[in-house]
Amino acid sequence: MTDILGRHLLVEFYGCQPETLDSVAVIETHMNAAALACGATIVQSTFHRFEPWGVSGVVVISESHLAIHTWPEYGYASVDLYTCGGHIEPLAAYEHLRLMLGAQQAEIQQLQRGNMDDIRSRTPHPNPLHPDLNPAILKGGTFA
Amino acid sequence: MTDILGRHLLVEFYGCQPETLDSVAVIETHMNAAALACGATIVQSTFHRFEPWGVSGVVVISESHLAIHTWPEYGYASVDLYTCGGHIEPLAAYEHLRLMLGAQQAEIQQLQRGNMDDIRSRTPHPNPLHPDLNPAILKGGTFA
Repeated sequence: MTDILGRHLLVEFYGCQPETLDSVAVIETHMNAAALACGATIVQSTFHRFEPWGVSGVVVISESHLAIHTWPEYGYASVDLYTCGGHIEPLAAYEHLRLMLGAQQAEIQQLQRGNMDDIRSRTPHPNPLHPDLNPAILKGGTFA
Repeated sequence: MTDILGRHLLVEFYGCQPETLDSVAVIETHMNAAALACGATIVQSTFHRFEPWGVSGVVVISESHLAIHTWPEYGYASVDLYTCGGHIEPLAAYEHLRLMLGAQQAEIQQLQRGNMDDIRSRTPHPNPLHPDLNPAILKGGTFA
């Protein structure tokens, strides 16, 4: 199995409750709860409502970030759940949001970020800041 | 051409300057400049440094968000450039960051978010909050 640094779920929620999608307080509450549901540690959250409608916000977590953008007029929300570390389960955040937003349909794409094989093969020099931690030494690989 | 709400570039930068990736002030400066470079309006930015190294941060823009997570020990940075609106060019933010981080290699995946055909076909009811803006009426489609 390939060693990766992060898991990134790109989620599209359809048929959500428009009132929910248009409330910055409600969306921030659900996003912070989603972060806790997946086992993350919240560093900071920032949410904003736009005129005439729509909310954008991000929860920075110690393990990367969760982001949302809502279009109440379409019942649509676009969500990113990007997590690092084996103790985090981003699908738990997805499931929490699916229920809280009242989504009638959803799509998920799961991507890997920071594939260590790619990092090793594409890093042309050992790391000068932390030479003891450069990928070739850490993973037993060699630099091109 | 399909009507979409957002463009999302997922970028992996390899072989970056470790000192750059480990400075929260430098990363925040470059990310905010990247937002301006692509024509975005900055709403708020939040950046944090982690121990023993690494920076995470997000710039919320009126047109969605830009996010970064850095691994100085690997010379690697993972970047998301998510923009909405025809006046924004996320590739300009990518090019700014590629230069400022000193990336020796990069990969980009470009995804579409909020495909209006999908929204129309997957929204099971007209929107009760803004009935005059429901997708079927807006786009002349019909709900299943």
